[in-house]
Amino acid sequence: MSQSSSDRIVASLQAWIAAAPAGTRLPSTRALVAEYEVSPVTVQRALRTLVAQGEIETRPGVGTFVREVRAARPHDFGWQTAALGPAGRRTSLPSALRTPPNDAVALHSGYPDRELLPERLVRAALRRAAQGESAFARPPVAGIPDLQAWFAAEVGRSTTRGSMPPTAGDVAILPGSQTGLTSLFRGLVGRGRPLLVESPTYWGAMLAAAQTGVEPVPVASGPDGPDPEELDRAFARTGARVFYAQPTFANPTGAQWSTDLAERVLAVVRAHGAFLIEDDWAHDFAIDTEPNPLVARDDGGHVVYIRSLTKSVAPSIRVAGLIARGPAKDRILSDAQAQSMYVSGVLQAAALDVVTQPAWSSHLRSLRGQLASRRDLLLAGVREHVRQAQVTAVPKGGLNLWLRLPDTVDLARLVADCEARGVLIGAGDEWFPAEAPGRFTRLNYSGPNPGAYPEAMRVLGDCLGDQA
Amino acid sequence: MSQSSSDRIVASLQAWIAAAPAGTRLPSTRALVAEYEVSPVTVQRALRTLVAQGEIETRPGVGTFVREVRAARPHDFGWQTAALGPAGRRTSLPSALRTPPNDAVALHSGYPDRELLPERLVRAALRRAAQGESAFARPPVAGIPDLQAWFAAEVGRSTTRGSMPPTAGDVAILPGSQTGLTSLFRGLVGRGRPLLVESPTYWGAMLAAAQTGVEPVPVASGPDGPDPEELDRAFARTGARVFYAQPTFANPTGAQWSTDLAERVLAVVRAHGAFLIEDDWAHDFAIDTEPNPLVARDDGGHVVYIRSLTKSVAPSIRVAGLIARGPAKDRILSDAQAQSMYVSGVLQAAALDVVTQPAWSSHLRSLRGQLASRRDLLLAGVREHVRQAQVTAVPKGGLNLWLRLPDTVDLARLVADCEARGVLIGAGDEWFPAEAPGRFTRLNYSGPNPGAYPEAMRVLGDCLGDQA
Repeated sequence: MSQSSSDRIVASLQAWIAAAPAGTRLPSTRALVAEYEVSPVTVQRALRTLVAQGEIETRPGVGTFVREVRAARPHDFGWQTAALGPAGRRTSLPSALRTPPNDAVALHSGYPDRELLPERLVRAALRRAAQGESAFARPPVAGIPDLQAWFAAEVGRSTTRGSMPPTAGDVAILPGSQTGLTSLFRGLVGRGRPLLVESPTYWGAMLAAAQTGVEPVPVASGPDGPDPEELDRAFARTGARVFYAQPTFANPTGAQWSTDLAERVLAVVRAHGAFLIEDDWAHDFAIDTEPNPLVARDDGGHVVYIRSLTKSVAPSIRVAGLIARGPAKDRILSDAQAQSMYVSGVLQAAALDVVTQPAWSSHLRSLRGQLASRRDLLLAGVREHVRQAQVTAVPKGGLNLWLRLPDTVDLARLVADCEARGVLIGAGDEWFPAEAPGRFTRLNYSGPNPGAYPEAMRVLGDCLGDQA
Repeated sequence: MSQSSSDRIVASLQAWIAAAPAGTRLPSTRALVAEYEVSPVTVQRALRTLVAQGEIETRPGVGTFVREVRAARPHDFGWQTAALGPAGRRTSLPSALRTPPNDAVALHSGYPDRELLPERLVRAALRRAAQGESAFARPPVAGIPDLQAWFAAEVGRSTTRGSMPPTAGDVAILPGSQTGLTSLFRGLVGRGRPLLVESPTYWGAMLAAAQTGVEPVPVASGPDGPDPEELDRAFARTGARVFYAQPTFANPTGAQWSTDLAERVLAVVRAHGAFLIEDDWAHDFAIDTEPNPLVARDDGGHVVYIRSLTKSVAPSIRVAGLIARGPAKDRILSDAQAQSMYVSGVLQAAALDVVTQPAWSSHLRSLRGQLASRRDLLLAGVREHVRQAQVTAVPKGGLNLWLRLPDTVDLARLVADCEARGVLIGAGDEWFPAEAPGRFTRLNYSGPNPGAYPEAMRVLGDCLGDQA
């Protein structure tokens, strides 16, 4: 603990012991006191440390001796296999989390490049948080009240006439949406029970489903969203009571549900006495339309809403807001609390600081323009160089272009061929909870170096051509 | 999103709509363009927003109308009861998390007062982190390598002769020990399976056990730790394969296992092909002896080790290090990653900065002195004023004094009586996984205002006297 004279003696004796055969008797305390010119207390402390380390052993009334050393064995952890029992489903992390080589064009990742983040705002907010109360206060388990209120107000802005907007008390602050999803799946669904999910859908949700042991049941979701009648049948067939969806700029398809579809899906959910988990991941990534969360259309407690700030503010700001009402909220919160107790006050304070600055609005306006240019540049590249691909829809928001490729394509080979030529793309299979109904690729237009998009699309087109 | 002229029109029309009967026709776009002196595009955007909000509806070819308003209903979440199904075990938060009134003497909490934390160090570290790379980098899922290495080196210092110290690669950084415990219980034990725990033990572990559905089986643990023979019988009887323990300054008893006991417990654990989860929560709160983690005595992968920095560094630094080897590590990591993806880089960088400053060692030395004085002051108060209580042991580290009270005491009444007189104490029952074998109270000596300890102990003694 301290670099004291006792530590000095320990270090010196360790060297001495290392050179001595097991069973060698140590010099007496008196001799060590003389040798190191320290007090007997200091020598005793050093000896206690060496005993604790297993270096020496004291035989009362006899003396202190270098201990018999167990020979170093090669590690054998085979015994763990029986102790651990069968593994659950594999939950390996998808390629979206891979860190690419520096010179590659990374279209596979889901995280926006730094130039799209409000860096100056975030650094200033973190600096202020470093000086503020939040660094040394334990925040309430449901979060800092002003941040709860902000999440509620953001939804309140789009609350429909005649329905009661959520209040700050309906909001819980969580350490990111991944934690939120696992708590939601455990709290609302439960191990072994079915969970309806869009197909394709966000891989993080499938990871959370695998880890919590819920059974994802795919409901096809196209460029306009899911078909309410198919959803209705899936609820009836499986007895599911929860549907997980991204109604605004879904990952990967970019679909935004129309007002009409939103109402029809809500009607189905209500009719089945079920929950809709609305993952509003792309709230801050609108391009052509406004986000319009479904939770604002529901005051019956059917929609449970989660929105993370990590992607739009900064990777280090692991903060999400969850909105839920009724007993469901208690169920989820109790899981989240047992899970993580509370969210770092510094991160909450910094997040609140960022999103309440006037510069946050102007950042979002400028971000909108940047995302539009990037999307259009990538689209132009696809249309010029990847004529084999079908653009399923031009996304009105979000970070991804979802391309359908010819059914004959060997996707693994395509991904490898592109990578060999410095272009990383996402294999569409990773976004399907079951068998993929075709060959797809997800191209993320928020990564570094958008200037290389045309060339990258030329590469993709060439690699597809090689398979023709 | 933007405080634009479109927003201005939305606000103005909302007021107009609120005053208009349902079905009223809105002025034409042309009229609105003239009225607000904006472009048709801006008016269209405002109308789209109002449609999305459910305020108005457009009938193609006819016009735009104020929408029929659903009457606001009182909330009825009764339908959720069926959808949620039976609740798991209650996992209410214990009194240790209560925020006391400002003028109370808070002996019930488990969190050190700010004056015991390295405030200057932490604020400087957070400021540096706010400027550094970590704010905008997504760290590796297992953590920042230098921080992994630091946790490994801390244990390596006490590694016994002939055993291989853990390496940085054996360490995973987690967002606090609570997250670690839930991942450990899910990964190593599994729902419905038995988990041996010391009795009494840390309530956060019991909370994690309840939430993960593992079945805690108490093994009595006194002022010197558990009895290895009883542990052996518990393993044999239950078929458990995991024992959760705090061998160093256990919460609440303060017990530190001797080297001999550590070896005997490890022998039992090895003999049963089992894991020991070592929760080294008080590593930084040594007073009279040095911490001496068991994980340093085991290179067979039997000890899985977790150490949080939250209590000793700052409440906002939610960072813990987990050490595990063999397939167990993969099992735990896969759960932790599905759970929280990664730990905020800012928090990891700040934690690493703090613990690698030379001032950290001097802080720990001074902390040791402060804890010693506080403990001794509280002890003196107990011995003078609470003669009815038995000090089970003088803790050599940690933050708590564990007192046995007469068996006739009504604990709930005692806690209430003390609170009425401004003294908050912990009801011992909360630390027992099953029935408490007697009446206990935990007094934490790391809270604010230690000067009030003598008076607080007088109050405790009086309240006990009232029950005589």
